[in-house]
Amino acid sequence: MTLDFSPVCPIPQGLPDTVQLAHGGGGRAMKQLIDGVFRAAFDNPYLAQEHDGASVETAARSALTTDSYVVWPLIFPGGDIGRLAVNGTVNDLAMCGARPRYMTAGFILEEGLSMATLTQIVASMAEAASAVDLPIVTGDVKVVDKGKADGLYINTAGVGDLVASGPIAPSQVRAGDAVIVSGDIGRHGIAVMAARNELGLESEIASDCAPLADPVLALVDAGIRLHCLRDLTRGGLASGLVEVAEASGLSVAADEVAVPVRDDVRAACELLGLDPVYVANEGRFVAFVDAEDAESTLAILKKFDVSRGSALIGAVADGPAGRVTMRGPLGPARVIDMLSGEQLPRIC
Amino acid sequence: MTLDFSPVCPIPQGLPDTVQLAHGGGGRAMKQLIDGVFRAAFDNPYLAQEHDGASVETAARSALTTDSYVVWPLIFPGGDIGRLAVNGTVNDLAMCGARPRYMTAGFILEEGLSMATLTQIVASMAEAASAVDLPIVTGDVKVVDKGKADGLYINTAGVGDLVASGPIAPSQVRAGDAVIVSGDIGRHGIAVMAARNELGLESEIASDCAPLADPVLALVDAGIRLHCLRDLTRGGLASGLVEVAEASGLSVAADEVAVPVRDDVRAACELLGLDPVYVANEGRFVAFVDAEDAESTLAILKKFDVSRGSALIGAVADGPAGRVTMRGPLGPARVIDMLSGEQLPRIC
Repeated sequence: MTLDFSPVCPIPQGLPDTVQLAHGGGGRAMKQLIDGVFRAAFDNPYLAQEHDGASVETAARSALTTDSYVVWPLIFPGGDIGRLAVNGTVNDLAMCGARPRYMTAGFILEEGLSMATLTQIVASMAEAASAVDLPIVTGDVKVVDKGKADGLYINTAGVGDLVASGPIAPSQVRAGDAVIVSGDIGRHGIAVMAARNELGLESEIASDCAPLADPVLALVDAGIRLHCLRDLTRGGLASGLVEVAEASGLSVAADEVAVPVRDDVRAACELLGLDPVYVANEGRFVAFVDAEDAESTLAILKKFDVSRGSALIGAVADGPAGRVTMRGPLGPARVIDMLSGEQLPRIC
Repeated sequence: MTLDFSPVCPIPQGLPDTVQLAHGGGGRAMKQLIDGVFRAAFDNPYLAQEHDGASVETAARSALTTDSYVVWPLIFPGGDIGRLAVNGTVNDLAMCGARPRYMTAGFILEEGLSMATLTQIVASMAEAASAVDLPIVTGDVKVVDKGKADGLYINTAGVGDLVASGPIAPSQVRAGDAVIVSGDIGRHGIAVMAARNELGLESEIASDCAPLADPVLALVDAGIRLHCLRDLTRGGLASGLVEVAEASGLSVAADEVAVPVRDDVRAACELLGLDPVYVANEGRFVAFVDAEDAESTLAILKKFDVSRGSALIGAVADGPAGRVTMRGPLGPARVIDMLSGEQLPRIC
C-alpha cells in the first residue's frame, strides 16, 4: 500500500516532505506542524486561544458525541477521511436532535506519512467543517512509528445544542411508528471497496458521505414527532434497524422493495455477494416517527438534496423485541439480524 | 513486543480471548464487546441512553479539550493508558479553569489484543473516572488489522464547566508574574522508559500520573489571580515555559536549583543523558500567578498530596518574547528552548 496521493495542496513552508516522530514530541517540530498544517487550515478564534482546551458558550442542554475514523484508503470516490470525520460528527449530533456547534479533532499520524497527503486531507476537513459552520475548536497530534496507523487515524468529538423539545432515542419508539430511510443505501461501502482495488471491481460509484443536520433540523423545526433517528454507518440499514428494535423492545416490519438501492450499487453487491442492507453508508439515516407524521416527514426530507430519495420502508409493531423482518420482492418475509461478523474492515 | 500482561480481570462471559476485526464491524460482535467490556465498566445513565451521542446539561461557559493516547507499553509503573487518558482529560480541563463534567472515549483496538488486557485497562479507566466523579458519557470502538495500533490507542474529549471568573490563558500573563511548578518533575518519562526495558534501566520510579483538578479548583475558589496554567506533559517543563512565553510575548527567568527533581529521577536522567526539564510528566503543572498571590498559591497547593511539592521557580519579565532562561547551580543562566527533536516517542 502507498500513502501517497497526487498532492493538490502545497506543503506549508519550512515543513519536511514526510511526518517524523519528532512532530509528535511536544517540542519545536510539533509546534511547526500544528501552526503550519492545522492552525492555518482550521483558523478560528477558539483555536487562537492557544491553550490546552477551548472556552466556548454552551446551551443548557447539549449533545456529546465521539467517533474515530480509520477508513482505508484515506481518499476514496466522494470523500476522504477528513471529510468523513466532519460529516460523521455532524450526523451523530443531528441524530440526537442537536444543532452542531463545536468539534474537536485528534490526529494519530504515522511516521513517514506524506506531508502533501496530510495537508490535502486537512484542507478537505477544513472545507467540510466550514460548509456546515462547525469550528474545530481544539485538537491534538500524536505520531506513531512507521508501519502503524496506515497513514493517519482521526478522532473527533462533537458538541451540539439540543434543540428537539423531547428526547430522541430508542426508548421513545412506539408500536405503529413509521420507519423512513433518507435515501438510497450502500454507496459508501461500495465506493470504499472499489477504491481498494482489492475486489476486482471498477465502478463510478461515489460515497454518499454528506452532512445530515439540515434535513433533521427542518423536521425538528416543523414539530414532527421524531421518536428516534439513527445514521446508517457500519453494519448498514440492517444493524441500525435491529439496534433500535432491540433497545426499544419492539419489532420492525420492513418492505425490501421500498428500500432505495441504485442499480449500480445493486449490481456491485450481486457481484460481490453482499446484501445492500448490510453495506455501510455515511450520509443516510433512518427515522422512526409517529405514523400520522409520515407524509409530512417525507415532504420535508424531499426538499433537501441529501434526503431527496427518502422513502417509507416499514412500521414498528409490538414484540418480539428486536425482531426485524423484511418482506422480499417475491412475497415472503425474512428475518434480518445484525451483521454477525465483519463484512469489510476499516470502512469508516 | 507482547500485548499480554498478567490478567487481573476475568474476561466477560461470551467474549473470545482476543479482539477480532468483527468487533469493530458494527454488528452483533461489536455490540457484545461494547456491552460486555465497556458498558459494564463505565455504566452511567448517559451511556444507558444507547444512542449515537449523550444528552447532558451544560453550563453557559464550557471548556472543551481533546487528546489521543498512544503510550507504549500500555501498562507502566504508576499507571496505564486508560488511567492516563482519564487523568489527562481532567488535567486539560483544569488548566482552562474548568470543573470536569463529562468525557468521551474512542478506542482504536488492534486485532489480536488480549481481551484480558483490554478488560484490565478499561477497569482501570473506569476506576480513575469514578475517583474524580467524571462520567464517560459516550464512546466509540474501531478495530484495525493486526500489527497496527500496538494493542490500543485511546482518544478522549472532555467538557468542563468554566468556573474561573476570567480567562486563564497565555494572553493573561504579565511581567512580574510568579512562576510556580506543582511538584517534582520527570517521573512519568523515566517510569515509561524503564518499563520498556529498552534503556538498560531498572528502577522503582512510578509515573506521577494523577488528576489535578482539586488543587486548581481550590486556587480558583480562593480568588488567586491565576493568569495561566499549563500541564507539563510531552516536552516537559521546558516546552511548557517556552510555549507560554512565546504565546504571551514575554520572557521567563527560572532558577534551576528551585525546580524539584527527585534524586532517583536525577540519577536516571544522568545515566541516560537526559535533562529533567525536558522529561514528560502526567501529574504536574506550572502556574503563572500575580506576584502578590505567590505565597498564598503555594500555601493552597501544599494542602493537596498531588501538589505538596510545589515550588516557586521563577518570574516573568518583559521581552525578548519567548526567551526562557534558567540559572544553574553554579550561577550563569542558560537559554532553554523547546525540545527540538524527539526525546522519546509514544510517552503519552
